[in-house]
Amino acid sequence: MAEGPKLVAELLGSSRENILEVHAVKEWIKENAHLHNVVMTEVSESGLQKISQLKTPNQVVAVVKKYETGDTIIVKGKLSLVLDTIQDPGNLGTIIRIADWFGVEQIICSEDCADIYNPKVVQATMGSIARVKVFYTDLEEWLQSQKDIRIYAALLEGKDVTKIGSLKEGLIVIGNESKGISSKIIEFINERITIPRKGQAESLNAAVATGIILSHLGKVES
Amino acid sequence: MAEGPKLVAELLGSSRENILEVHAVKEWIKENAHLHNVVMTEVSESGLQKISQLKTPNQVVAVVKKYETGDTIIVKGKLSLVLDTIQDPGNLGTIIRIADWFGVEQIICSEDCADIYNPKVVQATMGSIARVKVFYTDLEEWLQSQKDIRIYAALLEGKDVTKIGSLKEGLIVIGNESKGISSKIIEFINERITIPRKGQAESLNAAVATGIILSHLGKVES
Repeated sequence: MAEGPKLVAELLGSSRENILEVHAVKEWIKENAHLHNVVMTEVSESGLQKISQLKTPNQVVAVVKKYETGDTIIVKGKLSLVLDTIQDPGNLGTIIRIADWFGVEQIICSEDCADIYNPKVVQATMGSIARVKVFYTDLEEWLQSQKDIRIYAALLEGKDVTKIGSLKEGLIVIGNESKGISSKIIEFINERITIPRKGQAESLNAAVATGIILSHLGKVES
Repeated sequence: MAEGPKLVAELLGSSRENILEVHAVKEWIKENAHLHNVVMTEVSESGLQKISQLKTPNQVVAVVKKYETGDTIIVKGKLSLVLDTIQDPGNLGTIIRIADWFGVEQIICSEDCADIYNPKVVQATMGSIARVKVFYTDLEEWLQSQKDIRIYAALLEGKDVTKIGSLKEGLIVIGNESKGISSKIIEFINERITIPRKGQAESLNAAVATGIILSHLGKVES
């Protein structure tokens, strides 16, 4: 479910093929009468209230198809993020925004990550949700089939991220906010990378760590 | 106000001189009877409820002195963060945690930044609140008196942060989540720095940007 005129407009612009249904109030439908190939259903304010997950629904609700692993995930020739149990909606949204900043086109999430259409996720992406593809899958099974790509993981010990240089291709695995990367995923890792620590904090926030890693490994060449 | 046994214990360990009063239930006082030089007042559960800012108070509340500009802020020979109107408590807490990770000892906040003892700030610091000094001051006035130190600012245009190398000394100014650095602060900036963008996001979260900048400018030498 994607809600509100701003987000729905962005999705209609960038990934219309994934919009299954649009339920909107009369006013929104009138303003968007020029749109073709979109199934719109007019609802009353109280009808919208029933469908919406928000306390204060905002004109329009779209039912959006999630990317499933049935859709082909192409990993060759690019950097992709892999999220293992990122459960905080704010972190997931912030990571989507970071991916969009660094030109990372796709994120592969374990099935127990936060829901991409949770309003807090949507809010934290600041619009980037319409530009980054987010897939949900059984990570263990999916990683098993990734034979020809290097898999990196952000851990508390590993190779200094500031000394690796930029990568053209690879999967970067980010782990859960408190438990890190799960043991069944760890075994697929080819290279452990770490953000050197000078002070005493025990860890970094998962989204902050993702931003730092991409700023080093995904940096713009010139 | 700092609340709960974990945070109060960390503050008692690292900055006891700033703890003005401790109000706690009988059980906590008994467990901490070995502490000297701390003024403890025993309160009932319902008494604690009246003092506490939390819905569910947790054994102890400490009244803590904020660092004021009357305290000397020493900026020579180190990197310090300067926050201009960081209003989201989660962002402020996350920035304190990042500073602690990269060994940045002090943060100078404008007076309209979130309150460091807001429970959401405390939570987001994950304990780092006890190790990083956070001062609140009139930034414009304070920056006017900083004659012998280089002032850097994170902006959407400037020198590529990945090409500056590590800095031994300086002030790094981070601006408000949506408005950026205010115009009256911009005039004190000696060097504009930026995080190169490959994709389409309009901006990065303030805490994420801080983490990225410190990972490049404050990195560990080896």
